[in-house]
Amino acid sequence: MKLTILGCYAATPRTITNPTAQVLEIRNRMFLIDCGEGTQVQLRRNKIKFSKINHIFISHLHGDHFYGLVGLVSTFMLLNRQTDLHIYGPKGIKEIILLQLKYSNSYTGYNLFFHELESKESEVIYEDDKVLVKTIPLKHRIYTNGYLFEEKPKERKLNIAAVEEFKIEKCYYQNIKNGKDITLENGKTILNEQLTFNPIPAMKYAFCSDTMYDESIVSIIKNVDILYHETTFLESEADKALKTMHSTAKEAALIAKKAKVKELILGHYSTRYDSIELFKEEAETIFSNVILADDGKTFDFNN
Amino acid sequence: MKLTILGCYAATPRTITNPTAQVLEIRNRMFLIDCGEGTQVQLRRNKIKFSKINHIFISHLHGDHFYGLVGLVSTFMLLNRQTDLHIYGPKGIKEIILLQLKYSNSYTGYNLFFHELESKESEVIYEDDKVLVKTIPLKHRIYTNGYLFEEKPKERKLNIAAVEEFKIEKCYYQNIKNGKDITLENGKTILNEQLTFNPIPAMKYAFCSDTMYDESIVSIIKNVDILYHETTFLESEADKALKTMHSTAKEAALIAKKAKVKELILGHYSTRYDSIELFKEEAETIFSNVILADDGKTFDFNN
Repeated sequence: MKLTILGCYAATPRTITNPTAQVLEIRNRMFLIDCGEGTQVQLRRNKIKFSKINHIFISHLHGDHFYGLVGLVSTFMLLNRQTDLHIYGPKGIKEIILLQLKYSNSYTGYNLFFHELESKESEVIYEDDKVLVKTIPLKHRIYTNGYLFEEKPKERKLNIAAVEEFKIEKCYYQNIKNGKDITLENGKTILNEQLTFNPIPAMKYAFCSDTMYDESIVSIIKNVDILYHETTFLESEADKALKTMHSTAKEAALIAKKAKVKELILGHYSTRYDSIELFKEEAETIFSNVILADDGKTFDFNN
Repeated sequence: MKLTILGCYAATPRTITNPTAQVLEIRNRMFLIDCGEGTQVQLRRNKIKFSKINHIFISHLHGDHFYGLVGLVSTFMLLNRQTDLHIYGPKGIKEIILLQLKYSNSYTGYNLFFHELESKESEVIYEDDKVLVKTIPLKHRIYTNGYLFEEKPKERKLNIAAVEEFKIEKCYYQNIKNGKDITLENGKTILNEQLTFNPIPAMKYAFCSDTMYDESIVSIIKNVDILYHETTFLESEADKALKTMHSTAKEAALIAKKAKVKELILGHYSTRYDSIELFKEEAETIFSNVILADDGKTFDFNN
């Protein structure tokens, strides 16, 4: 699982900081999460192949999370994209994008599917054989979802020495990797645990931005490997965080602690602070495994 | 008159090239012309004060000319702008911007005026005591206008030696600068031309992008000081220019020649060519005063 931060700063794009956008590579799928203005340039800068992005997840309809989307959709047209593109986001996103395509008299040569979200409960919005994506309802000034990306359980690992010892034919290997026991020709049953090792554990990544402090998400993101949680402010501006329905670094860390996540990535920083290290210092008073996101930073997560 | 090119490349924004946007400073007014994605970052990069922009002119509703507008409107909100903002552009621009503000539950604290254009004839769309702006109807795939920015005639320059010789009181100076003759107490009339010098000639700047070759604009832009004309292609791709309703460098130069402009600035380059110098070379076979626009370039024009 690999995460590339294209932008992780709040509010307006600036010369050296970008609004929210990130790419999650998980089991060979490439998911774009949020798409602030300038995302397509950040994709180029980080050498991410446009054509590999087939699914885009938008948290909410504040500009710093989606103003780059219509440009990306248009650029896909110019690049003669053929593959289907799926966009997940709050109700309204379809109207916004299609209105602009209409006035520019442009039509995508590829199929553009909108999956508009309205539910206030967590729901599965994407599923294939290897990955599942659920919404994480967040509390912000407008309707907002975080997203939980889950790898499905991986195959068990074949114990080569064991299967060879029992002289099991190769055509049974896939069944064994899928967890099945095997009955030999002599009628004896070999339990799967004698033939396999445990698989590499499946990983979970939770993206939570923008949101105020909200313990009701803890049950949804319980035990995830990586939690990206917004921290627009420090505790010294807790009043501003409350008023604008954002979180402080301490609050992000409290959620990480309560949800017993392995690692917490902080992002969505207000640019009012001199150094983003301040967010890490504050969060570490509550929770120990804190990482700072920054534009252009890449994280490789492996179990 | 000062022109700052924020972006002058066709189609998608890239890491080192930007879609169309430029700032014209004319008689202390600051006009933004087109606003492709990333324009607000380009404004910062070129140290242009956001608060001085009160009028934005959008040529047409292709993304590379206006996808940065909604972000700029939003950033003005975050910066607590109070001054009125006027946006001139094709019908539809109001619906597009307001729809996005509606879904983000945002309302500008400043007055936002839309001046939607539908006419296919040149018309005056802005006028104050010093500057006049007219549309230049262009031929492109969708409804498009160029813009002609005209300084109004400046005051005549006072011939100090002459007014002192005639012992004319200072209270008459403004009338004289406005071109009036003066009648002395002895009844003798002094002609204005004896008391003044010709003013610095008023300047005209014409912005024409995007457009196919179209001689019908020549009468509107006749004798302008500076013509910015698009040249997406070279003559070697004349078929593509025709098909996409863009111009070649040769065609831009032909328009400049027929309109007897003083200088031609080329821009809106396709990124397919190795060097933008090729556009200049081609244009110079037809017209001699050719300048290449480039992102971040500033031109000072004085008579």
